[in-house]
Amino acid sequence: MFNQKKIAMKNFIQISLMAIVTNGCLWPAQSGAQVIEDFKPSSVNQPGKDYPQVNSEGRVRVQISAPDAKLVQLDIGAVKYDLTKDENGVWTGESAPQDEGFHYYQLNIDGASVPDPGSLYFYGAGRWGSGIEIPAHDQDFYALKNVPHGQVREHLYFSQTNNSMRRCFVYTPPCYDKDLSKRYPVLYLQHGGGEDETGWSNQGRVNLIMDNLIADGEATPFMIVMDNGTWTMRGPRRSEGGTWPPRGWADGFMNTLLNDIIPMIDANYRTLSNQQNRAMAGLSMGAMQTRIITLANPDVFSGVGMFSGGSISIGDVETAEGFKESIKIVFVSYGSRELESGRFSFGGDPVENTEKLKELEMNAHFYVSPQTAHEWQSWRRGLYQFARLLFQDSK
Amino acid sequence: MFNQKKIAMKNFIQISLMAIVTNGCLWPAQSGAQVIEDFKPSSVNQPGKDYPQVNSEGRVRVQISAPDAKLVQLDIGAVKYDLTKDENGVWTGESAPQDEGFHYYQLNIDGASVPDPGSLYFYGAGRWGSGIEIPAHDQDFYALKNVPHGQVREHLYFSQTNNSMRRCFVYTPPCYDKDLSKRYPVLYLQHGGGEDETGWSNQGRVNLIMDNLIADGEATPFMIVMDNGTWTMRGPRRSEGGTWPPRGWADGFMNTLLNDIIPMIDANYRTLSNQQNRAMAGLSMGAMQTRIITLANPDVFSGVGMFSGGSISIGDVETAEGFKESIKIVFVSYGSRELESGRFSFGGDPVENTEKLKELEMNAHFYVSPQTAHEWQSWRRGLYQFARLLFQDSK
Repeated sequence: MFNQKKIAMKNFIQISLMAIVTNGCLWPAQSGAQVIEDFKPSSVNQPGKDYPQVNSEGRVRVQISAPDAKLVQLDIGAVKYDLTKDENGVWTGESAPQDEGFHYYQLNIDGASVPDPGSLYFYGAGRWGSGIEIPAHDQDFYALKNVPHGQVREHLYFSQTNNSMRRCFVYTPPCYDKDLSKRYPVLYLQHGGGEDETGWSNQGRVNLIMDNLIADGEATPFMIVMDNGTWTMRGPRRSEGGTWPPRGWADGFMNTLLNDIIPMIDANYRTLSNQQNRAMAGLSMGAMQTRIITLANPDVFSGVGMFSGGSISIGDVETAEGFKESIKIVFVSYGSRELESGRFSFGGDPVENTEKLKELEMNAHFYVSPQTAHEWQSWRRGLYQFARLLFQDSK
Repeated sequence: MFNQKKIAMKNFIQISLMAIVTNGCLWPAQSGAQVIEDFKPSSVNQPGKDYPQVNSEGRVRVQISAPDAKLVQLDIGAVKYDLTKDENGVWTGESAPQDEGFHYYQLNIDGASVPDPGSLYFYGAGRWGSGIEIPAHDQDFYALKNVPHGQVREHLYFSQTNNSMRRCFVYTPPCYDKDLSKRYPVLYLQHGGGEDETGWSNQGRVNLIMDNLIADGEATPFMIVMDNGTWTMRGPRRSEGGTWPPRGWADGFMNTLLNDIIPMIDANYRTLSNQQNRAMAGLSMGAMQTRIITLANPDVFSGVGMFSGGSISIGDVETAEGFKESIKIVFVSYGSRELESGRFSFGGDPVENTEKLKELEMNAHFYVSPQTAHEWQSWRRGLYQFARLLFQDSK
């Protein structure tokens, strides 16, 4: 679907919604079926490792030598699958079909939860652990290709707000080091809860998404700053009269972002350092932070992207002075399975909210990632769609 | 010892050699001693993880919940230590004292070798696995401090030689993005066997070593390029009449380095792109590659650094045309325990070889890292010493 990049946004959403309905019927029938023996090593295996593997159904097969173990399980998608031991003490087994895209998983060996020694590791669910890629029909948009590549820079800096050293990753587009007089817009892009500043460039593949978009002339080249939005100082709980989501973590990160990160980036990179050329986006917790921070600071940001973490309501806009006039784009997206479950539509129906913003003549967009849940494939697709719309005036 | 940065190299080596002798007597006596209960979480634990821990003796204590396991072991320094299970199914235990610095380790759970879920992961021994830091008396030189920091950039590029996409990491010094007219010398720095392009900036901390040296005015600011020197196409084995070390992997990487990496770096960064401002160094396998590649190309490189991987002999210099005249520095280092074991002095005694090069009036240096083996603390210290001597004419 992503190969047809000229497809209109409206048609795209309609097709996506059809896919949701179709999938709802087909999926359960496949679960108990015969396993198709066309497994191949996952694309994010460690060098030279044959396992884990994935087949054409999206099943994950793992294998580990544990001669003295009593029970070894594959733990993926909140389900534990028992493995089988052979005469050499090697355990093997596979999961039910998984959705397209990236998933966290782990092994359980006699009660110990550990990473699979065959996979690369990714930070999520509050730990460095195993990840796997289920090949996706649209994986071309985040594939590593022989096109001009930007850089992902590890940047260490001192934060006055936190009185400590911090780290962010900065994506600079392929052209950044070619014309040293050119300046660039900046997107501040946040991870989800239990993740960190490594998520978007590791499992999110944001640099490859951008490199491919820019090579195809589909996006304005811009910089992306990925910092750590985890913030432990929380506001009062709901039971104590607090609001949901709690404001503490958003306010804490807001101070760091406004007082430390943005000035540091503007001082060290060739940025276009004004509101028109600055956006914020995030996934899940990062989307909730984006909502709170951009509603409070429409003089700082002109673009708002929220992936799988609420939406902007009429009420939000009415109480946020200057938001309606200053914000140039509001983009909201979800995975189709999130909408089916209804678990992630806090803050009002996101489709309805988007329509209401359009009635206010705001540039509002809503996108649904077909057949994906609260996972990275939804966020890769959301970022891809958002990036094509962002900073169009800077093109 | 590293705090006294003005100490002369000659005295430094003498002190180091004394340390070896002293250590040879003291170490075995400590092994069976009472465990001192002052354990603290390792500095390279995952966020929020209490284990693994290290005490003032350098013992490593691990802990993992594995209620149904029969045997859980800590595997570090080629020794396996049995852990003890408590009534909650949590296993705990510690190693004998370890040398200062960084060590790879793993857990064994009923025969399965897996990473410790408490530690950060590092690529070495052909896998992503657990690592631990034993606080070192000289750790200040690679500590994260509030000084100006350079960047470590992930750089993707197409290699004609390999007909594939490759990745390197590029360290740019703190000043790189300040004065856009300034150009910099470049060190090409290689990892060891079973490691990759991530080693020097992760467990090697090369960016922090450089940032601290530059902040103290102790090193000329230069760039460092870290690529993947692993090369599977080998020459004939010794039993088949081949030489040792086999030339295949060095030749293979040499082509990639000379034909792809160096031109790519010179085209994309503000380098001083001549022999006078280009050096190569490496550890273990990377040192052997450095020896072969620089002996064959003294018109390309002026600096040679070899950490724990042989040395340059008179015979080498006599048969390498132009080497004696063109090379401005030859630096060789080892960990003291490597010299004690004698396992790593292939290619002739490195002290003797260094003295012979000095007799030829070459600028030759030999350094011994006190009380360390074939491990990263030796290589951090080697790099620290080498970096202070490199590109002095560019200062």
